[in-house]
Amino acid sequence: MNDQRIIALESRDVRFPLPEGAGSDSIHSGSEYAFATTLIRTEQETFGTGIALTLGNGNQLVCSAIEMLGQKLMGCYVEELMANFGEMSRQLANDPQLRWLGPHKGVIHLALASITNACFDLWAKMRDVPLWRLLLDLTPQQLVKVLDLSYLENVLTAEDALSLLESQMPGRTAREPILMQGYPGYDTSVGWMQYPDEKVKALAQQAIDAGFQAFKLKVGSAEGARDVRRACMLRDLAGSGGVIMLDANQQWTAPLALKMCRQLAKMSPYFIEEPTHPDDVAAHGKLAEQIAPTRIALGEHVPNRVVFKNMMQAHALHFVQVDCTRVAGVSEFLTVSLLARKFGLPVVPHVGDMGQIHQHLVLFNHVALGHEALFLECIPHLQKHFVAPAKVEDGVYFTPQFPGSSSDLRGVVPARRSL
Amino acid sequence: MNDQRIIALESRDVRFPLPEGAGSDSIHSGSEYAFATTLIRTEQETFGTGIALTLGNGNQLVCSAIEMLGQKLMGCYVEELMANFGEMSRQLANDPQLRWLGPHKGVIHLALASITNACFDLWAKMRDVPLWRLLLDLTPQQLVKVLDLSYLENVLTAEDALSLLESQMPGRTAREPILMQGYPGYDTSVGWMQYPDEKVKALAQQAIDAGFQAFKLKVGSAEGARDVRRACMLRDLAGSGGVIMLDANQQWTAPLALKMCRQLAKMSPYFIEEPTHPDDVAAHGKLAEQIAPTRIALGEHVPNRVVFKNMMQAHALHFVQVDCTRVAGVSEFLTVSLLARKFGLPVVPHVGDMGQIHQHLVLFNHVALGHEALFLECIPHLQKHFVAPAKVEDGVYFTPQFPGSSSDLRGVVPARRSL
Repeated sequence: MNDQRIIALESRDVRFPLPEGAGSDSIHSGSEYAFATTLIRTEQETFGTGIALTLGNGNQLVCSAIEMLGQKLMGCYVEELMANFGEMSRQLANDPQLRWLGPHKGVIHLALASITNACFDLWAKMRDVPLWRLLLDLTPQQLVKVLDLSYLENVLTAEDALSLLESQMPGRTAREPILMQGYPGYDTSVGWMQYPDEKVKALAQQAIDAGFQAFKLKVGSAEGARDVRRACMLRDLAGSGGVIMLDANQQWTAPLALKMCRQLAKMSPYFIEEPTHPDDVAAHGKLAEQIAPTRIALGEHVPNRVVFKNMMQAHALHFVQVDCTRVAGVSEFLTVSLLARKFGLPVVPHVGDMGQIHQHLVLFNHVALGHEALFLECIPHLQKHFVAPAKVEDGVYFTPQFPGSSSDLRGVVPARRSL
Repeated sequence: MNDQRIIALESRDVRFPLPEGAGSDSIHSGSEYAFATTLIRTEQETFGTGIALTLGNGNQLVCSAIEMLGQKLMGCYVEELMANFGEMSRQLANDPQLRWLGPHKGVIHLALASITNACFDLWAKMRDVPLWRLLLDLTPQQLVKVLDLSYLENVLTAEDALSLLESQMPGRTAREPILMQGYPGYDTSVGWMQYPDEKVKALAQQAIDAGFQAFKLKVGSAEGARDVRRACMLRDLAGSGGVIMLDANQQWTAPLALKMCRQLAKMSPYFIEEPTHPDDVAAHGKLAEQIAPTRIALGEHVPNRVVFKNMMQAHALHFVQVDCTRVAGVSEFLTVSLLARKFGLPVVPHVGDMGQIHQHLVLFNHVALGHEALFLECIPHLQKHFVAPAKVEDGVYFTPQFPGSSSDLRGVVPARRSL
């Protein structure tokens, strides 16, 4: 295989203003969507794009961190690097000075996400295959080598990961039809916090007409009564068969979460998302017990595999919403997916990437790890900014066919090599 | 009381190279000590200095975050601001865009630490008293108002905090003599990881001669045998009465931590610090059970009160090493100290500030909260850079007498007002 050497790494602070009220929830408002973008380029002018989501202000901090952390990749040969990416990920995450700023969380970990995603994008482009195909073609041994499993030794060793992957090989054929059928989606964009009732209703009807059967509604208003009213309204619209998810975005204290979850349980949510502070493993564990059989989803603010491990050990969540633009990119996403499989939990990613990369990853999770193919969040607001936007029709993500991870952004390309 | 209005906020990236090998441990090397410094200034030219420690590279990210977050303070009146600082802290921590970069951890939380510390320094200077005096003079009601207790409601409500403070009022007089006697110190600087045995021995002897009876040794070497040898060497030197603490700086996996703690237990360490990943509440909880009666200390990488709460709930630590330059400054330090009191755990701060601010805070903790006056870490490397360096003699911190929090750095002053 022809290898290529990385000769340039740049960051780009790319921001997209949102329409009025879009993206709003109980704790975030006035946001832009922004990508702290990594561009890495080889001598042969192939380039990889990596993204990590932020909400605007502060995106430049992640970009600066990308430039600091990324220097280590300069001069690396891509195939060589990726063959042992787990070790590189571990080294980057443990940079002897930058580590203090985390460790493994916050701005520097978002930077690592962006860098890692660029590496995987480049790798797949060099092999001229979509990311899902590249990942499915790796042997279990090769796959384990792209992962940093450190600090999971008490729950998932490299040997455990290998056996898990091998045990799923025989069932692959039976799961591969999904590659032709596409992966189910659900619509997040009907129920933003600041949308008035009429708009939520109209958007939900549009979504139903477009083939969606699953919706998400933002809750966690200052007055709980508003949450209950909106939830009932959406239930009426979707009918008893519709799947409705509620998302509190960490707004509730532990006692309030208990009270609100009990009230909202009446309209049979599929899950309740981020009921309280994302670091509070114990509170989520207790709440899960108290509100059973109502189920909890979380992960968009869980920074790394160690905290996910604790969440799973504490039975604090039922749906693992790991996001490859929050944890350390594609590789830590896969690590958390393996962990989830070990704990028997489904993965329903949060899509900081607007689903572009995750549409590849959920296919891998289903086919190679045997994860149930539940559904993948759809957020359409940035479609037009991607070179190859995810194609969702009749509520289903089409399987992407272009080489890479579908992360390239229109007009965001590396500077030309200066000779 | 004369109030003053804040009219300027600047950050300064201040770095101090360290002597060869100083500051080294199992995961950090080649470090500088660096302060992401906040300077806030009033119309009357009074200024406050706030610091947050980093290890060099990346310090500028925290400085940039300080300038972003700090804008909210412009135009505030200091007494008015500080009278209700808990609410301001909550608002800053929940900035609707920057929050995504944490929440409540990493670069933006370090920025909040630095800003908060500057506010407290300024407040004490305006009242012309050292910080410990200012804090002791607040009524329990006033004290609770400087704290952000959100997300602690299931363990420590504002009412709980108030009762706790009030319940300690009668015992204050009996504890006040410490203000005259000074607070005991312990020496961290004898046993850095890269120091050869002879140097550790010589420094420990010097420390003994200087009146210290407590020392810390870095462990977590690639070969465990080196750790055991060095620990035994220090035990021989200090005698059976000497207090020796071991610090693994998160280097061990959970299984290795168990093995090494069992080996090192033989030389009776006072505690073993940061045995494994700082996010791993469950692993620390399990380890604490397995290695009892050997005790665990941690906190220098615990980012906020929520994770401390979980650590305490899981019985994962015996010594709370909260650092006001890691959590959101003086106020979150006090919150965690209250939590610790509630759980019956002693506070032995990690001193990212080289003990300058913490010498005030431990006095408050002892007198007002009834915390045992154990000892405070001493790291002498930056003494000459502070305007009023902590004075440690015969192993005891003298009680500081200058107004403020002892954070001012030589030559680091606000730019003159441009008229």
